[in-house]
Amino acid sequence: MDFITSIVIVLAAALVGRFLSKKLKQPIILGEMVLGAIIGNMSLITGEGTRVLDPVVSNFADIGILFLLLSAGLSLNLKEFKKIGKSSAVVAILGVILPFILGYIAAIWFGFSYITALFVGAALMATSIGVNAEILLELGIIGTRLGSLVMGAAVIDDIISVVIIAIFIGVVKIGYADIWDISIFLILALLFLLIAVLLTKDRVSGVLDKYLSKAKLGRENLLIVGILVALLFSLVAENIGLSIIIGAFIAGIVLGQLSFFRGLKDNMSLIGGGFFIPVFFVTVGMTFDLNAFLSIGGFAGILLMVAIVGKLAGCSLGAKLIKFDNRESIGVGIAMIPRAGVELILVKLGLRYGIINTEIASAILVMVIVTTVISPPVFARILRK
Amino acid sequence: MDFITSIVIVLAAALVGRFLSKKLKQPIILGEMVLGAIIGNMSLITGEGTRVLDPVVSNFADIGILFLLLSAGLSLNLKEFKKIGKSSAVVAILGVILPFILGYIAAIWFGFSYITALFVGAALMATSIGVNAEILLELGIIGTRLGSLVMGAAVIDDIISVVIIAIFIGVVKIGYADIWDISIFLILALLFLLIAVLLTKDRVSGVLDKYLSKAKLGRENLLIVGILVALLFSLVAENIGLSIIIGAFIAGIVLGQLSFFRGLKDNMSLIGGGFFIPVFFVTVGMTFDLNAFLSIGGFAGILLMVAIVGKLAGCSLGAKLIKFDNRESIGVGIAMIPRAGVELILVKLGLRYGIINTEIASAILVMVIVTTVISPPVFARILRK
Repeated sequence: MDFITSIVIVLAAALVGRFLSKKLKQPIILGEMVLGAIIGNMSLITGEGTRVLDPVVSNFADIGILFLLLSAGLSLNLKEFKKIGKSSAVVAILGVILPFILGYIAAIWFGFSYITALFVGAALMATSIGVNAEILLELGIIGTRLGSLVMGAAVIDDIISVVIIAIFIGVVKIGYADIWDISIFLILALLFLLIAVLLTKDRVSGVLDKYLSKAKLGRENLLIVGILVALLFSLVAENIGLSIIIGAFIAGIVLGQLSFFRGLKDNMSLIGGGFFIPVFFVTVGMTFDLNAFLSIGGFAGILLMVAIVGKLAGCSLGAKLIKFDNRESIGVGIAMIPRAGVELILVKLGLRYGIINTEIASAILVMVIVTTVISPPVFARILRK
Repeated sequence: MDFITSIVIVLAAALVGRFLSKKLKQPIILGEMVLGAIIGNMSLITGEGTRVLDPVVSNFADIGILFLLLSAGLSLNLKEFKKIGKSSAVVAILGVILPFILGYIAAIWFGFSYITALFVGAALMATSIGVNAEILLELGIIGTRLGSLVMGAAVIDDIISVVIIAIFIGVVKIGYADIWDISIFLILALLFLLIAVLLTKDRVSGVLDKYLSKAKLGRENLLIVGILVALLFSLVAENIGLSIIIGAFIAGIVLGQLSFFRGLKDNMSLIGGGFFIPVFFVTVGMTFDLNAFLSIGGFAGILLMVAIVGKLAGCSLGAKLIKFDNRESIGVGIAMIPRAGVELILVKLGLRYGIINTEIASAILVMVIVTTVISPPVFARILRK
């Protein structure tokens, strides 16, 4: 099947999903993912018996997640974000530790080796930045104190997870943790974040704006420049060892401070939301494998429970500690439940190095899909109250 | 090299090309193609010694040409287009016959077999709809009488070329022309065009609009629906045997008649012009192979001359016959010079069936690139006078 047919099917599914979401008053990404799961299990695009997407469609989806995080960065309220920054570390850390411990215990309980159990724990750590960004954008609260807390905590737990996974894979591959490699990674990551912070300083962005204001760009060229900057940040992040979506997110925050790029947010949300981002969420849904879901038993159920309870408890507790009220704290906990990012990379690596078997991989994938699907509607309901 | 790096390079080239075009007061596609040729010959993306693009980038380019033709269709003035429709057939037919005959004679002159000569003639027939659409959009004259004539003639000569090539390939493959296959193709193509014409009738579009106006779509969903319709039309066109870009163009014309899709034109031109279309023109430029250009001698030069003179004379004469003034007639002739569409498919097929050798293929490619690069600035200059 050629890629245009694939895209037609994916876009049609997105449209139907959005329509149903609206009718049933659910977040649009829920409809997109559910429709994705349906066409995925009809094997329309992936071909009988395989979950492998047409590579082109999955590249469109990659651009989709980048554009989503770029939009999220552009929409962020930097003042709120900086104010809440240190506090969100509390939420992130508690939200990483609790699922990790619970996942480890669950795997040991089911008789897996301690190395496999460590791996399962690690797979429960990172919240999905993408899902969070979309639902916060959709509810229009990404610029609020709560939205900033959730985005900040999601970014931090992603970084923590990447570090732990890097150590972990290093140990599995070469038998010990390469302190040198990890130090370099940490230094580069810090440097990257520092430069980003520097670029958002009023004084720096003022100078940049003054310089940029001389160039007169039409909206098309402005869009090209914005996309180019986001892709460059993503490549830098990727080469450091961070995930590319963090690069796009930080690019969005930086560009959001420049009045030169004022028109970008609106145009990015159009090109993203009107094409690439729906492709992303439908393809996320398509990874859901009904047969795997039905065939794996108790362990998948326990893993799912542990993933939900661990994040909910850890992050709600964290939010409560930094003085959010009860309803907000539970909201934060629920917002942090979705997993779909680092986990998927982890599954790939785990299978490659023989740390997990396909059964555990399926259990993790089911956890990823279910947490991603159930969290947004619950979060939306709590927030609307 | 991963596809994000490829896209970064292509977009950066597009941006530099646009900037230079603006400085030198040239059409932006000229800058994009020239920069494409430069990065192509630096082998940044394609890898040393190969012209093969990263497949993902070339798929983005495919979407670019579809979006370009969709925008062109949306921007067309249907009344002018219908009025000029029959007349444009004169321009198209004269513009097909003359280059064909001249190309045939040139190839025979250089000692090639009559079958190769027929093939070379066929490779000079079709104008590039994409290049025309872009330059007419850029100059803001796609809705005028002259713009309608050029687009109409380009579509018609594309269809004529596709039919002749289909016959030709059939003869080469099975030894005779399969009248049955060709009749079916013609009937389906006519049916497709008839349905399109029907859909643009005031009475039909009125009913459609009345029905559609009940649905309230945001601009994102409107964009998704528009893209979906265009891709569906493209798939239908492709399955009939027409080129996919004709499908997208016709989809644009049909949607352009519906007031429901009024916001689409503006948003399509943003998502196209701000991302996909520059990728298309840069990748067109990238196919230019400096070494091939330098190594093939006299035949390439003659072919290029014949391609330019044939189209210019044929189409100018045609325009003159249907009562355009001298300057306009020459303008039409120049506008019709660029080739970059059917020719590229023809080269692929010709090589596969052993009708042409790589030397002739290079000569055709050089002809495609040079005609595409030189026509837009000359056309723009004549029109501005």
